[in-house]
Amino acid sequence: KPAKQRQRVPVVPQGIERDAFIAALEELGGQLGKENVEVNDKPLVDGWYMEHPNTHDMMTILDEEEFVASAVVYPSTTEEVQSIVQWANKHKIPIFPISMGRNLGYGGAAPRVRGSVVIDLGRRMNRILDINPEDYTCLVEPGVSYYGLYEAIKERGYDHLWIDVPDLGGGSVIGNAVDRGVGYTPYGDHWACHSGLEVVLPTGEVIRTGMGALPGNNTWQTFPYGFGPFSDGIFSQSNYGIVTKMGMTLMPNPGGYEGFMYTFPKEEDLAPLIDIIRPLRISMILENVAQLRHVTQSVAARGIPRSKFYSGSGPIPMDIVHKAAAEQPVGDHSWGYYGMCYGPEHIRKHKLAIIDAEFKKIPGARKIDPKSLPEDEYYFARERVAAGIPDIHELRWVNWTPNGAHIAFSPVSPIRGTDATALNDLGRRIHDKYGIDFFPAFIVGLREMHLIVEIVFDRDDPERKKAALDCLRDLVEEAAKLGYGEYRTHLVLMDQVAGTYNWNDSALMKFNEKLKDALDPNGILAPGRCGIWPKRYRNRGWEM
Amino acid sequence: KPAKQRQRVPVVPQGIERDAFIAALEELGGQLGKENVEVNDKPLVDGWYMEHPNTHDMMTILDEEEFVASAVVYPSTTEEVQSIVQWANKHKIPIFPISMGRNLGYGGAAPRVRGSVVIDLGRRMNRILDINPEDYTCLVEPGVSYYGLYEAIKERGYDHLWIDVPDLGGGSVIGNAVDRGVGYTPYGDHWACHSGLEVVLPTGEVIRTGMGALPGNNTWQTFPYGFGPFSDGIFSQSNYGIVTKMGMTLMPNPGGYEGFMYTFPKEEDLAPLIDIIRPLRISMILENVAQLRHVTQSVAARGIPRSKFYSGSGPIPMDIVHKAAAEQPVGDHSWGYYGMCYGPEHIRKHKLAIIDAEFKKIPGARKIDPKSLPEDEYYFARERVAAGIPDIHELRWVNWTPNGAHIAFSPVSPIRGTDATALNDLGRRIHDKYGIDFFPAFIVGLREMHLIVEIVFDRDDPERKKAALDCLRDLVEEAAKLGYGEYRTHLVLMDQVAGTYNWNDSALMKFNEKLKDALDPNGILAPGRCGIWPKRYRNRGWEM
Ligand SMILES: Cc1cc2nc3c(=O)[nH]c(=O)nc-3n(C[C@H](O)[C@H](O)[C@H](O)COP(=O)(O)OP(=O)(O)OC[C@H]3O[C@@H](n4cnc5c(N)ncnc54)[C@H](O)[C@@H]3O)c2cc1C
Ligand SMILES: Cc1cc2nc3c(=O)[nH]c(=O)nc-3n(C[C@H](O)[C@H](O)[C@H](O)COP(=O)(O)OP(=O)(O)OC[C@H]3O[C@@H](n4cnc5c(N)ncnc54)[C@H](O)[C@@H]3O)c2cc1C
Repeated sequence: KPAKQRQRVPVVPQGIERDAFIAALEELGGQLGKENVEVNDKPLVDGWYMEHPNTHDMMTILDEEEFVASAVVYPSTTEEVQSIVQWANKHKIPIFPISMGRNLGYGGAAPRVRGSVVIDLGRRMNRILDINPEDYTCLVEPGVSYYGLYEAIKERGYDHLWIDVPDLGGGSVIGNAVDRGVGYTPYGDHWACHSGLEVVLPTGEVIRTGMGALPGNNTWQTFPYGFGPFSDGIFSQSNYGIVTKMGMTLMPNPGGYEGFMYTFPKEEDLAPLIDIIRPLRISMILENVAQLRHVTQSVAARGIPRSKFYSGSGPIPMDIVHKAAAEQPVGDHSWGYYGMCYGPEHIRKHKLAIIDAEFKKIPGARKIDPKSLPEDEYYFARERVAAGIPDIHELRWVNWTPNGAHIAFSPVSPIRGTDATALNDLGRRIHDKYGIDFFPAFIVGLREMHLIVEIVFDRDDPERKKAALDCLRDLVEEAAKLGYGEYRTHLVLMDQVAGTYNWNDSALMKFNEKLKDALDPNGILAPGRCGIWPKRYRNRGWEM
Repeated sequence: KPAKQRQRVPVVPQGIERDAFIAALEELGGQLGKENVEVNDKPLVDGWYMEHPNTHDMMTILDEEEFVASAVVYPSTTEEVQSIVQWANKHKIPIFPISMGRNLGYGGAAPRVRGSVVIDLGRRMNRILDINPEDYTCLVEPGVSYYGLYEAIKERGYDHLWIDVPDLGGGSVIGNAVDRGVGYTPYGDHWACHSGLEVVLPTGEVIRTGMGALPGNNTWQTFPYGFGPFSDGIFSQSNYGIVTKMGMTLMPNPGGYEGFMYTFPKEEDLAPLIDIIRPLRISMILENVAQLRHVTQSVAARGIPRSKFYSGSGPIPMDIVHKAAAEQPVGDHSWGYYGMCYGPEHIRKHKLAIIDAEFKKIPGARKIDPKSLPEDEYYFARERVAAGIPDIHELRWVNWTPNGAHIAFSPVSPIRGTDATALNDLGRRIHDKYGIDFFPAFIVGLREMHLIVEIVFDRDDPERKKAALDCLRDLVEEAAKLGYGEYRTHLVLMDQVAGTYNWNDSALMKFNEKLKDALDPNGILAPGRCGIWPKRYRNRGWEM
């Protein structure tokens, strides 16, 4: 997609004059080096995943100029992050930290408040500070990607250490964890697997959490809690601090692994299947965070545009999807479960036998023989990911529409057939209403599932963008009425989603706001992120 | 131990006149019912574990009157907890919530500030609100003990659900978790296993965290995070709120289990053994939070007083300990590892074979055959506990001295031989200095160990109390110099321990204080707990 002429430059944060802003940036340039302060006055280039912009959301659902940075700055040390924060307080300029800015589907690199100064931490703070082969831990800066960490481990010959990766390997280990992202080995809950943070507070002080607060410790990455209040959690999905270092536990090489895939023929197989999965998952017979995907997305996962199958309006008819699936190597189905079994062969065989017997209780269930699949089949991407090997195959379904972009609806439910059906029916009904193809995938955590519904849209088609956004807003609202809430969301939906967590007259949000006001009196850090507005912004029309 | 005449009654919170206090209590009695407000003016009865006091620490290391309540109140609902908090704000009276008050070794039921009003939540708020046999979760009030939860599960016939218990089953599921206690199955990290809190804030509002903030949800106990900042952690080891409900995940019955014990002959076996344990533990071949105990405590675990073995002064000589051990069923040793293997027999055998081969690398390692042991042997208590069955056998070593009481030193280290040796040597040296018997036990978490050193003392002997406290203060200080910090501590040591977590000019404590002042402007909730003093108390001589 070609870069458009800018309509609304220069971008200046609200409440400051243009000249004063330029002068403030020059002041900051004097501290960080001119080359590390970039004004965002050039055309907005979307690029692609590996060369993504840090000025805006490359998959924007609103006007591109809406969530846009006024400038981007590149600190190289924690001290420089502190001076940026002090500078922001001095001039009352909103700042928005990103680690790598690949938060696609949830806002990419964009700030929530137009004209914020984006702090691109990852560009220069990208060191792996430690990989500890005895404790199975590491300590990283924001710019360390899954690819980077994986390669460093291989280079050092640490075959006994695995990492856990989300579907795309280009993300930041820190950025993903602070947004509470997930991967697909048994270590899939990234936030649960971290240990130790270094955080620059909104007033510029720097703290180390957990054992990091004890000088000379050697336990920062092995014991998450430390002594006293365990404060890490409030730095995830928030705007209370800038994470400059994070410890992460590494998974031991399980001594063998074996991916597997089962398909299930009917839409209605969903409920009984989920009820079969639940006890197996909780008791770790099903060991990894697995995906149960609908056939429509599996067809799309080959990267072939929708137009090759269907050119009519409205959602693609299911008979066409099934016909396309039947012609693909996996064969026709409604649901596909991609799992992995770990450990040496003599242990795996017992678990696989149980799984096989249980899954085959669904009439027509088929175990797919990976040997029957071509090398570039999507199945193998899932297998790599479940073995902690970074990948980007997952990007392919974004080609489903021209100028493909996507945005996610991500509600949480127990692992129960009734819930899966309720959410799936709701999703299908509302997608139909807006004429949008429905891509449900259940990501099975330990006691809950994230249903991830990706809406793929043509980002050059304002009408389809509007339909996608209306559909999402509807989904969030209707799901909340049934008691389902999102685990994470896009910038544009943060106020709405936060608003659904409103028990007892929004007591939790009032509590969040109290913390925000105490920690960030000038309201400079990522205003509006996760629906938390600082006092200076609250009820002044920023919510959307 | 007989109850003493009180020397310092009535106890009145600082800063309020006696009459005003009595009037305030009457006002509160009007709200809660007279019978639910008790003035603490009777003799302080220590009782025993199952009938412990809620007015003071039954194992006090200071003068009994030091950490003592002025009154104890018994709310029956969250709303009543809210009114107590509002009342405390109105009168500026310090309040101190306990769930069951069995926090022995860390302060029992006592408040940190003399004259606080203790809120004994457990007495009347003791309902199991839910046991969910599908999701493997439960929701409890503060008065639910491990015994209570265990029995309710058995009563309902849920054989597929296990709980995780600490060494003593009389504790509160909530009280233990908020102090970040541990148990001994694979679910041993209680804080990590909780999901969802209801909390009354110091200003009286009530929030529900995680999915609990979403009205009509069915995920409060299955998905801990919810949306936005994950605030649960700041309600553990803190004084930021009163937990009135907590969700807890339950372990699936593993389908079989087998306890095992190995002994190792020499003191110096510690380092190589710990290095053997580390990779086995991280890769879950050693599946549970196990204990590696020193022989001295194992001798004491039979409940026979020290005087039967030795009546000299100074620490009991090791040759006497070894002689006593040799006469016991387990036989002589220096270190004993108590573990458990889970799952059906055909899975266990593989893990047990690896463990056996690895442990036998230590010359003289012996696998103890449980069948060779008498029924009341301590080994079987460990086996019950590792199978999630509540127990109180562990109390027996408290009989080591007359009027036995104890207090714990609990530093954290990586699972490494060098660290184990450093801490063990430090502990031995400082215990010798104060003439105290040394009881080290390493509790092996996943990537770290809690070394728990219990100092047993005669609580009627002021000199031995002083020696115990001096010894502890020395231990904390010297350990910190080596980079080791405590995971939890007794009321009397909270300031000192918090003071060791002082990186960057005590930045974390300043942050904690900022939160405290924002959340508790009147400083009424558990002042001083975990070293956090509200503004009204800070630097006014309360620290010790
Ligand atoms: C096809 C596709 C598949 C995907 N699959 C997955 C998946 O399987 N699992 C998954 O979790 N996600 C998935 N995503 C979403 C996303 O790509 C990843 O989560 C990605 O890792 C997030 O981008 P990032 O790591 O660069 O984080 P960033 O964009 O750097 O950070 C995300 C947000 O967190 C905050 N933040 C980041 N760093 C800091 C910091 N240091 N201090 C304070 N706040 C900070 C900022 O608000 C930022 O916007 C997928 C996306 C696509 C397009
Ligand atoms: C022989 C022996 C062995 C032990 N073994 C273990 C062990 O294996 N593992 C272990 O973890 N501990 C152990 N302990 C310590 C202790 O007995 C347990 O941790 C016990 O569970 C704590 O007491 P409790 O559950 O009654 O908590 P409480 O005493 O009710 O609570 C502990 C503290 O937490 C705070 N608190 C409690 N409830 C709330 C609430 N609702 N809201 C806010 N704050 C609250 C209060 O400050 C309170 O003082 C042992 C003790 C002894 C004597």
